[in-house]
Amino acid sequence: MSDIVEASGVHKPSLYRTFGTKEELFATVLRRYLAERKALLSELIAECRPGIDGVHDFLDKLEADALTESGQLGCLFVNSSTELRGSAPGFEHFSDEYRETMRPVFRSLVERVQPATDAIVDQRVDLLYTLILGFRVTVRSSTGTDETRRTMVAIHAAVDAWRS
Amino acid sequence: MSDIVEASGVHKPSLYRTFGTKEELFATVLRRYLAERKALLSELIAECRPGIDGVHDFLDKLEADALTESGQLGCLFVNSSTELRGSAPGFEHFSDEYRETMRPVFRSLVERVQPATDAIVDQRVDLLYTLILGFRVTVRSSTGTDETRRTMVAIHAAVDAWRS
Repeated sequence: MSDIVEASGVHKPSLYRTFGTKEELFATVLRRYLAERKALLSELIAECRPGIDGVHDFLDKLEADALTESGQLGCLFVNSSTELRGSAPGFEHFSDEYRETMRPVFRSLVERVQPATDAIVDQRVDLLYTLILGFRVTVRSSTGTDETRRTMVAIHAAVDAWRS
Repeated sequence: MSDIVEASGVHKPSLYRTFGTKEELFATVLRRYLAERKALLSELIAECRPGIDGVHDFLDKLEADALTESGQLGCLFVNSSTELRGSAPGFEHFSDEYRETMRPVFRSLVERVQPATDAIVDQRVDLLYTLILGFRVTVRSSTGTDETRRTMVAIHAAVDAWRS
């Protein structure tokens, strides 16, 4: 809280008056992060080519983002996932909300790779979602960029198995 | 530190005398966790069938482990990965050490799936490692077991693409 006071110039009593508890303030931050990530990823996806090439484009953009200064900090959702269960009211379902918000975003990318049944598209969305969570852990915890690259190469290869 | 004092019955001064700083104590905990995980995963892998069936066996065991009470707590490495960079001396390389220790363990499983070149085996190890990190984030942050199952189904399908 004192970091926020220092960065915002807003006094503690005002913060508590506006946001309620510390947990509610954090929930507001997470919700905003989710909305921003959704907007950013949707924008990136809109710029990607059709078909499987578009998935590779998206992965390239994600890798470029991971190498920026803010990208190196990792994903707020992954970084705080430890605290997202069994704590304050309103938090228990945040990770489900996060996934349910992100799934359609990833789906709009993955469904470009045809032919595929709906069930296969859903499974690929789950795979991509899981890979990106794992990628973010590596980006956050690794000291060099080699591991970032190496992880992405493996993800590209897995996506290539979708070619029929 | 007071939690450790309470759980162990060892007084704070003794803890500091034995382990040095709080960070050094945490590093000791992480190293022990890594050694235990390595032993556990190696044991699980030893019980798996040859070939691609063995990879599916391993994934089943991992899912069963994730559904236990201790499994629900997630992976200490993933849970603390946020703090594993840029903090105390000796911590910067822990995540690299973690990965370098786990790679040969996963490799002993993945190399059973033949035919494959060394480069392909390495890539599959990186893929599996990344998927398991992502899986652990989901296990830790999800409220139900549906997501655990769903994520595993997607990982099984990705492994099936290794069949030549």
